Amino acid sequence: MQSSGRLHLGNYYGALRQFVQLQDEGEGYYFIANLHALTTVRDPKAALDLTREAAMAYLALGLDPKKAVLFRQSDVREVLELYWILGSVTPHAHLERAHSYKDKVAKGISPDFGLFAYPVLMAADILLYSADFVPVGKDQIQHIEFARDWAVKFNTQYVPGYDPADPEGKERGHSRGILKLPEARIQEATQTVPGVDGQKMSKSYGNTIELFGDEKEIKKRIMSIKTDSTPVDAPKPVPQQPATTPGLVSDAPLYDLLKLMLPESDFAEVDATWKAGGKGYGDYKKKLLEAYHATFGPARQRYAELAADPGEVERILQDGANRARAEASRLMTQVRKAVGIP
Amino acid sequence: MQSSGRLHLGNYYGALRQFVQLQDEGEGYYFIANLHALTTVRDPKAALDLTREAAMAYLALGLDPKKAVLFRQSDVREVLELYWILGSVTPHAHLERAHSYKDKVAKGISPDFGLFAYPVLMAADILLYSADFVPVGKDQIQHIEFARDWAVKFNTQYVPGYDPADPEGKERGHSRGILKLPEARIQEATQTVPGVDGQKMSKSYGNTIELFGDEKEIKKRIMSIKTDSTPVDAPKPVPQQPATTPGLVSDAPLYDLLKLMLPESDFAEVDATWKAGGKGYGDYKKKLLEAYHATFGPARQRYAELAADPGEVERILQDGANRARAEASRLMTQVRKAVGIP
Repeated sequence: MQSSGRLHLGNYYGALRQFVQLQDEGEGYYFIANLHALTTVRDPKAALDLTREAAMAYLALGLDPKKAVLFRQSDVREVLELYWILGSVTPHAHLERAHSYKDKVAKGISPDFGLFAYPVLMAADILLYSADFVPVGKDQIQHIEFARDWAVKFNTQYVPGYDPADPEGKERGHSRGILKLPEARIQEATQTVPGVDGQKMSKSYGNTIELFGDEKEIKKRIMSIKTDSTPVDAPKPVPQQPATTPGLVSDAPLYDLLKLMLPESDFAEVDATWKAGGKGYGDYKKKLLEAYHATFGPARQRYAELAADPGEVERILQDGANRARAEASRLMTQVRKAVGIP
Repeated sequence: MQSSGRLHLGNYYGALRQFVQLQDEGEGYYFIANLHALTTVRDPKAALDLTREAAMAYLALGLDPKKAVLFRQSDVREVLELYWILGSVTPHAHLERAHSYKDKVAKGISPDFGLFAYPVLMAADILLYSADFVPVGKDQIQHIEFARDWAVKFNTQYVPGYDPADPEGKERGHSRGILKLPEARIQEATQTVPGVDGQKMSKSYGNTIELFGDEKEIKKRIMSIKTDSTPVDAPKPVPQQPATTPGLVSDAPLYDLLKLMLPESDFAEVDATWKAGGKGYGDYKKKLLEAYHATFGPARQRYAELAADPGEVERILQDGANRARAEASRLMTQVRKAVGIP
């Protein structure tokens, strides 16, 4: 997770929730990508705060540091060494095809080198820990494909007996690659979370409901959810799927947010009165606020405790860094030997 | 110095000699750029050998490790951290203008990312040690200009009170930049050294006379220097300046190499008989071989001693790395604080 902004419902339902659940499926490596964040976060205090807040968010949402390895990207310097070495076998042309870069150029933005180099560091992040799979959204599949392509290039160049058709070296005379090819684990198509204005919830639209923000601000945000002028008594319009208004992901974000956050049986009740009429939007907003606190209350409580104990967060991150470094160091010993770095 | 090939007379007279002399002008940092070399040297044994040989060459040619700091680039990992951080403020467009990259593209070569990124790592190499100046050939001036531009960008972005017009922060209210702007020290226009075939001496033309190569091979190379069929008794043609044959830097490489290697008074004697006739090319080649041994004999002796004592070379490189790391670490503490990396 890149630490480039404060976390909101869109981050949670879109990715964080699923990420945390994965800790039960194996040995999970979770890191706060604060080196990547430097390409957009230019304020040192914000960079430090957002990094710590991202770590606290994971912990508050249930990540168990005894099980999962949680660390700051910058604490494992080996990743930058692999980044350079991998870059020496990365075709420049691949990076020109990277969506993230092409999108910026298409928007007329003059990108920095860091943005262009972004996928190489990301591949190093993955390969350094010999990841079996990486959970990604569909828009990130290219990055995993790059990591696989470059791992094959590295192995082919530097591992005698490596055969790209047999990357695990199972056949006689073949060698296993040093860099393991990761699989993309495509996240289940999650419902896009609408912001308070009906556009996709996103920091850049200023329409977010934060996970760990100030309580009054959360209330204000929820109370500001855009609704129409249907009278209290009248049935409320149910949002179309997909939304009919251009630019919006929901014609009725209040309804969609209730659907997202309420337990199924509670939502059935809401759905019935919504369609029958008799309740005002204000009532539904209060209902959503209750649902928000029911869902995130315990996490917000843990978050507040962690915020009050920065030493504990730092201890967890250092412990995670030590465990990550042990794995990174094991791989880098092989990589250095393969390329001829003492 | 990049460790991408075995050193020859062209390297010595073109750069190495002057570099070694600079150790008396201040605190010199000399490193073997074995990370940069990965962009071309793909064999681990060659990578290790060439790196050690380059270090031995510096020492054999008179670099004093008590005075100068001699180290391997890869031993100071901080350089890769600065490389990433600097890259986050480096305009992508600058790198597309880099000569080294454009030349490859113009030749139809599809470059790797490492070649494209080359100038960013080079800038990090320079800025990490707060270099006052960097000795370069004219073809390298752009790299120093890049390093200056990016240092200004970094300082402007991250140092409150920094004014690019006052980089040393001499005026009230101004701050000194964290990254020091290096000056290019253009190397005196040195005579281009001809290879045995009259083309510029270069590894890629296979026309080199090595500094520390096998004695028999050196003799064979010198005896193979291209000459014409002027009879022994006749005056020999003196090379034109510049050379008249297309593609050559010398029409008579034997004459030019004698001029380069012989003490002035000895060369005057050679010049007189060359123009008068009476001596054959074979005699002049023997003379050149003598001059070679007179010039490089002691260095070759030291080189052989160092080759027999790899532990001593390693000890010197480790000591250099420790001293370089102390300087790098001092700077990186400031850089990390400025950008917000713990």
